[in-house]
Amino acid sequence: MNLHQIIRDLREPSESKIVFVVADGLGGLPLELGGKTELESARTPNLDACVREGVCGLSTPVLPGITPGSGPGHLGLFGYDPLEYRIGRGILEALGINFEVGPRDVAARGNFCTVDASGKITDRRAGRPTTERCVAMCRKLQTIRIPGVEIFVEPVREHRFVVVFRGDDLGDKVNDTDPQMLAHAPLEAAGADPHSQKTAKIVNQFAAEAGKVLKGDAPTNMVTLRGLARYPKIDTMQDVYGLKPVCIAVYPMYKGLARLVGMDVADAGSTLAEQVDALKSLWGKYDFFFLHYKYTDSTGEDGKFAAKVEMIEKLDHEIPRIRALTPDVLIVTGDHSTPSKMRSHSWHAVPTLLWAKNARADEVTEFGESYCLRGGLGQFQAKYLMSLAMAHAGRLGKYGA
Amino acid sequence: MNLHQIIRDLREPSESKIVFVVADGLGGLPLELGGKTELESARTPNLDACVREGVCGLSTPVLPGITPGSGPGHLGLFGYDPLEYRIGRGILEALGINFEVGPRDVAARGNFCTVDASGKITDRRAGRPTTERCVAMCRKLQTIRIPGVEIFVEPVREHRFVVVFRGDDLGDKVNDTDPQMLAHAPLEAAGADPHSQKTAKIVNQFAAEAGKVLKGDAPTNMVTLRGLARYPKIDTMQDVYGLKPVCIAVYPMYKGLARLVGMDVADAGSTLAEQVDALKSLWGKYDFFFLHYKYTDSTGEDGKFAAKVEMIEKLDHEIPRIRALTPDVLIVTGDHSTPSKMRSHSWHAVPTLLWAKNARADEVTEFGESYCLRGGLGQFQAKYLMSLAMAHAGRLGKYGA
Repeated sequence: MNLHQIIRDLREPSESKIVFVVADGLGGLPLELGGKTELESARTPNLDACVREGVCGLSTPVLPGITPGSGPGHLGLFGYDPLEYRIGRGILEALGINFEVGPRDVAARGNFCTVDASGKITDRRAGRPTTERCVAMCRKLQTIRIPGVEIFVEPVREHRFVVVFRGDDLGDKVNDTDPQMLAHAPLEAAGADPHSQKTAKIVNQFAAEAGKVLKGDAPTNMVTLRGLARYPKIDTMQDVYGLKPVCIAVYPMYKGLARLVGMDVADAGSTLAEQVDALKSLWGKYDFFFLHYKYTDSTGEDGKFAAKVEMIEKLDHEIPRIRALTPDVLIVTGDHSTPSKMRSHSWHAVPTLLWAKNARADEVTEFGESYCLRGGLGQFQAKYLMSLAMAHAGRLGKYGA
Repeated sequence: MNLHQIIRDLREPSESKIVFVVADGLGGLPLELGGKTELESARTPNLDACVREGVCGLSTPVLPGITPGSGPGHLGLFGYDPLEYRIGRGILEALGINFEVGPRDVAARGNFCTVDASGKITDRRAGRPTTERCVAMCRKLQTIRIPGVEIFVEPVREHRFVVVFRGDDLGDKVNDTDPQMLAHAPLEAAGADPHSQKTAKIVNQFAAEAGKVLKGDAPTNMVTLRGLARYPKIDTMQDVYGLKPVCIAVYPMYKGLARLVGMDVADAGSTLAEQVDALKSLWGKYDFFFLHYKYTDSTGEDGKFAAKVEMIEKLDHEIPRIRALTPDVLIVTGDHSTPSKMRSHSWHAVPTLLWAKNARADEVTEFGESYCLRGGLGQFQAKYLMSLAMAHAGRLGKYGA
């Protein structure tokens, strides 16, 4: 079954507009048995009004028990099965620093590490250098030249950087050079096919040169590369859904993910209020709006229950301005759960609300994990949310006569 | 999508311990409309305490409407898709009598039948002989010798026995010789490939010899063979999950199923209390414990509603001793439903409880089919229960960056 082909076959032109508000890491857990989650604790009168008029459910981003990263979490929301569409770590790292990866590029995540006199790794993260030192070391790596390939080295933070090799016929089936343990030298790169062998040779040259230019710079005196990946070929949301989509996000990673599926990326400012301003100003030009809200995740990752509650309340505060634009479909959900109790992404199902004129309203009256469990959307795979959005937006015809 | 490959990629080392209590045939039906099921009728204060702190749901062992045998039911619980991993009837019969099938073996289920003077079947079950007679007849079959192959014949009960052919290059793509109707001679065996043709030839020789040694023994004067099968190659739970698993079961079939997925099999005594003693004594040596409880199924199969209720209460009685071991994840479920009203396995979804520190507790306060319907796990495929167990045990990392 090819979900995208079905949607292509059934989609119909429409002037309707869909707004996806993705509150990153929205789902949570109560701190104590019998308690409320962050979302259940938050005072959310405006979201609750949407809930009463709309339909709720709990979405499974990947599979039961599987905790998604940001990439798979968002791809699922955009209707791309995260088990089918996989994005290499190198690409995600590059997206995260706003590096525009092109079709001739292979991107990798790089780590500074420490090696002893015999070349064996004594610290895989080079003692977690400061980001300033990372920047300085990257500047040294930027001097490396290898014939036939263009090389970009960009700092991320601490021991992490991104390297992009740009050239013709570069494959990405290349192993990680990080041996994942101490007292071993970085691994030789090897390619699984002729094009990847070409890349592997370049990787090995790069590593040898890096050893030279960093020679005197212990503890940051060597590098390892991981997750070599080309930019994946993904049908755009225009192609699949016939939508004109735009991303209104603050952080580079989410802009990059949106670009990956063909969205335009708006200048979104830096606050949620500015993001809603951008939404308003772009209203006439697009028909699909992905508004990414970061702080429900970052407060969860920091283990700050009360702060996450506050961030949810701030989101709620902006809902009336979004509704005032009169979208045909308004969805509020997350790409995964980030319970502040766990200080990390988790596998727990994600509270989801869909507001639309023809939603079959359920008995749910407040937005929250345990309430959504009784919602009309039931528990469903996140990859179907776009089909539901399209249907409620009057953009999908009948399947079969 | 290969679920096992995903789990292999994501699994992380941990000291956590998982207990799977499988109450065979746990699910049931009320005797009368509006009544309670066996599980809902049972007084289960200890299970109910787990339910209040944990999360519940209803699992579908194979597919909606499909009634599983013990093999598929358990494979699903261990995370092996029962539609992908199929175990031949010959193997299951052999496991059921504790015959240790090896890699050079083809096992078959045998039936004694009655043939007339012309060799045509007049009773496919030989008038259901006593098990004593089955044992005596098997002794006669044990005298059969065929060059190049070792033959094992073991009684099961009544007309049923197991035959195992041990030799090199024996295939198992061989038809059943039972014609499934009267007035026909047993079918010739034929093989679908060279190795199976070798087996078929042996089967035909065996049947001819059986006709000779049983000649004067009507009504048990002939045999048919069904479900010829080799021992399936299944990745072990160690390989897939990185767990060290042990089976604490009383009946041979379940020990055999556990061995099939790589579990060690403990000396479990013969009562549930002794099984829990075994669990306690093995606690330090393993991290996955499969405790199989038979009597919820056998009372169901006997149509004894009150007895099944009593068996559930006996299970409940042992729960505190299991919890006292402080498992990180405790799951109580069944491999299928066995409503005493139906006196058989059934397709009905199976009540399931998962207790763990980071379970997202739901509103369910008692263990029972209708309560589980409102549980946070929703209705889910049993094959995902292991992923959920691994996640709640802190043994799975993030999918994608």
